[in-house]
Amino acid sequence: MDVLNPVNSDSLFPVDYSHLVAAAQRLQGVAHRTPVITSTTVDRQTGSRVFFKCENFQRVGAFKFRGAYNALVQLAPEQRQRGVLAYSSGNHAQAIALAGQLLQIPTTIVMPQDAPAVKLAATREYGAEVVVYDRLTDSREAIGEGLATERGLTLIPPFNHPEVIAGQGTTAKELLEEVGDLDFLLLPCGGGGLLSGCAIAARTLAPACQVIGVEPKRADDATRSFHSRTLQTVHHPATIADGARTASLGDLTFPLMLHYVNDMVTVSEAAILRSMFFLWERLKLVVEPTGALAAAALLEGIVAAPGARIGVVLSGGNVDLKQASKLFASLKKQTKPAPRQPWAKEMS
Amino acid sequence: MDVLNPVNSDSLFPVDYSHLVAAAQRLQGVAHRTPVITSTTVDRQTGSRVFFKCENFQRVGAFKFRGAYNALVQLAPEQRQRGVLAYSSGNHAQAIALAGQLLQIPTTIVMPQDAPAVKLAATREYGAEVVVYDRLTDSREAIGEGLATERGLTLIPPFNHPEVIAGQGTTAKELLEEVGDLDFLLLPCGGGGLLSGCAIAARTLAPACQVIGVEPKRADDATRSFHSRTLQTVHHPATIADGARTASLGDLTFPLMLHYVNDMVTVSEAAILRSMFFLWERLKLVVEPTGALAAAALLEGIVAAPGARIGVVLSGGNVDLKQASKLFASLKKQTKPAPRQPWAKEMS
Repeated sequence: MDVLNPVNSDSLFPVDYSHLVAAAQRLQGVAHRTPVITSTTVDRQTGSRVFFKCENFQRVGAFKFRGAYNALVQLAPEQRQRGVLAYSSGNHAQAIALAGQLLQIPTTIVMPQDAPAVKLAATREYGAEVVVYDRLTDSREAIGEGLATERGLTLIPPFNHPEVIAGQGTTAKELLEEVGDLDFLLLPCGGGGLLSGCAIAARTLAPACQVIGVEPKRADDATRSFHSRTLQTVHHPATIADGARTASLGDLTFPLMLHYVNDMVTVSEAAILRSMFFLWERLKLVVEPTGALAAAALLEGIVAAPGARIGVVLSGGNVDLKQASKLFASLKKQTKPAPRQPWAKEMS
Repeated sequence: MDVLNPVNSDSLFPVDYSHLVAAAQRLQGVAHRTPVITSTTVDRQTGSRVFFKCENFQRVGAFKFRGAYNALVQLAPEQRQRGVLAYSSGNHAQAIALAGQLLQIPTTIVMPQDAPAVKLAATREYGAEVVVYDRLTDSREAIGEGLATERGLTLIPPFNHPEVIAGQGTTAKELLEEVGDLDFLLLPCGGGGLLSGCAIAARTLAPACQVIGVEPKRADDATRSFHSRTLQTVHHPATIADGARTASLGDLTFPLMLHYVNDMVTVSEAAILRSMFFLWERLKLVVEPTGALAAAALLEGIVAAPGARIGVVLSGGNVDLKQASKLFASLKKQTKPAPRQPWAKEMS
């Protein structure tokens, strides 16, 4: 199995701001420069000036396209010819499939056979070969490694890869270039690719900006890892934020986060759902549960910083409308949000 | 009852492009410059290059804020002091209420007592006095005129008013300034304020652009009026596009449309619903049924122009999520869309 060449760099880490600049150039005219939405309602409710970076409008409906394309476009000709492999039941699958389609690189995606039919179909629609496995009896790693060895495929991991991280980081680079300095930047955290990439961007473009990762309480491995400085794991967490069900951070993303991220916080399932509902009904944005994580930390007062300029990344919008309707129907029975607990001192 | 002074102009009509330019200046920093969204999926499906102007992200969730603010900001000091009056159960009510709040002008909104509770609440939240009437026993005009005479209020009509039309026209002005020339511009049509205002903008900024208004089949008064050149009416049409239930065009909007608009088409209820679903699920945009009208004409092939550059105004996003869920649940039973009928010749 080939792996991508590690990026040469003089810095502490195999990915730094120069990689983000290069990634942004590669993505120019290929990825969408997604819009930034503001809301006077949110500003009034939080007392802050809030900028929502809408990656739900990114190609394939999530930021994942940035990293996938940035990794694939740098493959050597022989790697391109043989093709790439990814394991994913989520947005990374579609991102790799579309990037492969655009670059004429064959893509093979290993997905569980019980993945949502709509995701299987979308991945195939982008021209990927989907290999399904039985979650109960098969090992996706064994299947994937077998395929990779047999066909000489290059594995593109969903987050633990320098060029994937660099691609995801262009999200915050764009946001900061568009709106200027920020006091806080809130991002969802699954495997930490988006979070660490964006933290690199913030450190260069807005050095004083507090970068905060947000996880579901029920899948708080990254938060525990961050605070204990020791890698923690979580297994099959029962959270609606499917993008944050990742078992643990990676050996690239974890050190980057320890170095560049300021804090990690968690939000409840009810908070995620309430925030998702609010984003749909009031901001007119279809956002998936994982995409609402960072907004939840703000809207529920976990992060409260009156007077501050706050960036919030809405990471994706891939959600089944009928499933979302059912989730929203359960919302009535939820309790009211807890009173706001200021996370940071009032800024003047 | 005061009425606003008619606008002085040398042109054929009491509103022309110079009024749009002035309106745009007044709205600068007050109304949102709403984003334009593109979709490779839509481009591939239609064979066109499509630009969605997202007025669902406008303040109060619809383009109506533009016209309301542009009318209110020009009132004389004594008119401002006495306040304004509007009849509306929809987005115009909230638009007038917010514009009044921003300009410290008292607003009175006459609404049916069975209007959705969420709309009554939102209108009051913006500081308007809401006067409710019984649709079955009361005349809203009698109530409104009584209040207006008694309190000296100025009536701001929802569409048949030069400065309201000029305000709405800034929508297309912004779109054309951002994306450049267009071959087609598709807009929803209720009373014709948005359509006629935007047609004025197109005539100046993109003289060859075909401006097409879209109505529900079930509320096709403007289409019949346009084609017969005689004002037609419709009464309590049973369409989900509540913003297009207007009984007829106005004596200002109708002549403007005859002069500036190129054609009118209609779409079925099923087409509106399918398009709304598509905009939510694929484009991640929460759009109300009226807001999906123009998109429906394109997505259902009523307007088909492969190779063309097409602007589509998504006019608003104010919809009850639970009600929308019910509508979507009914979608399964809908039939497939009819085969596409090219409206225009293929463009090269």
